[in-house]
Amino acid sequence: MKKIEHIGIAVKNLEEAKATYELLLDEKPYKDETVTSEGVITSFFKAGESKIELLAATNPDSPIAKFIEKRGEGIHHIAFNVADIEKEIKVLEEKGFQLINKKAKKGADNKWVAFLHPKSANGVLVELCQDV
Amino acid sequence: MKKIEHIGIAVKNLEEAKATYELLLDEKPYKDETVTSEGVITSFFKAGESKIELLAATNPDSPIAKFIEKRGEGIHHIAFNVADIEKEIKVLEEKGFQLINKKAKKGADNKWVAFLHPKSANGVLVELCQDV
Repeated sequence: MKKIEHIGIAVKNLEEAKATYELLLDEKPYKDETVTSEGVITSFFKAGESKIELLAATNPDSPIAKFIEKRGEGIHHIAFNVADIEKEIKVLEEKGFQLINKKAKKGADNKWVAFLHPKSANGVLVELCQDV
Repeated sequence: MKKIEHIGIAVKNLEEAKATYELLLDEKPYKDETVTSEGVITSFFKAGESKIELLAATNPDSPIAKFIEKRGEGIHHIAFNVADIEKEIKVLEEKGFQLINKKAKKGADNKWVAFLHPKSANGVLVELCQDV
């Protein structure tokens, strides 16, 4: 069984969204992190064994800026914890899933990450995560 | 802290989506349930302390049919567990959140549920859930 590591939510203004989710979840975010390679600034809230990750673009070419331009703010991806990401990539490819990243890359929150194409999972952008 | 009860994913064809998510999550759904009042048929997978809920429309007026028509398949909502849903509705209204349901209604999987308007939460449809 795969656990939900986090839910990523694309937002326009990180500070405003942090204030909203602090009220909604009744707790403060535990960290902010910039992922320069992805052009995003993120903020994390704990939600049981999972996390809520708010994502804002740091430049107009960021995937988050493009997502918001096309669809507006909202849920961007679901991330699942896996024990061995390289093995999981291989297994999912063999099962016919389309991988955006055929090799894990460094993501936020000290993780190795790889994304599946939404076409493979009923329109859902699925991220695989393994602790570094 | 609120735990994620489930993630709801809107799909066109429930049987095809079940087969896909069975491959992705490497486990079988543990139950199917029709919620006649909402015009949906659902299928649930365990994911740690949370669940993945696939939702397909049973008629063209179903909110799920309208969602897919407008945005395509994809993540439809996030549900959080709450201990006292009527109290939570009141507290969130006082904090300025816009509730779609000002009174809890019966949802799938033996829960009382209420939805917040996506406008209140950066485009995310948030469901509150309490065990019946």
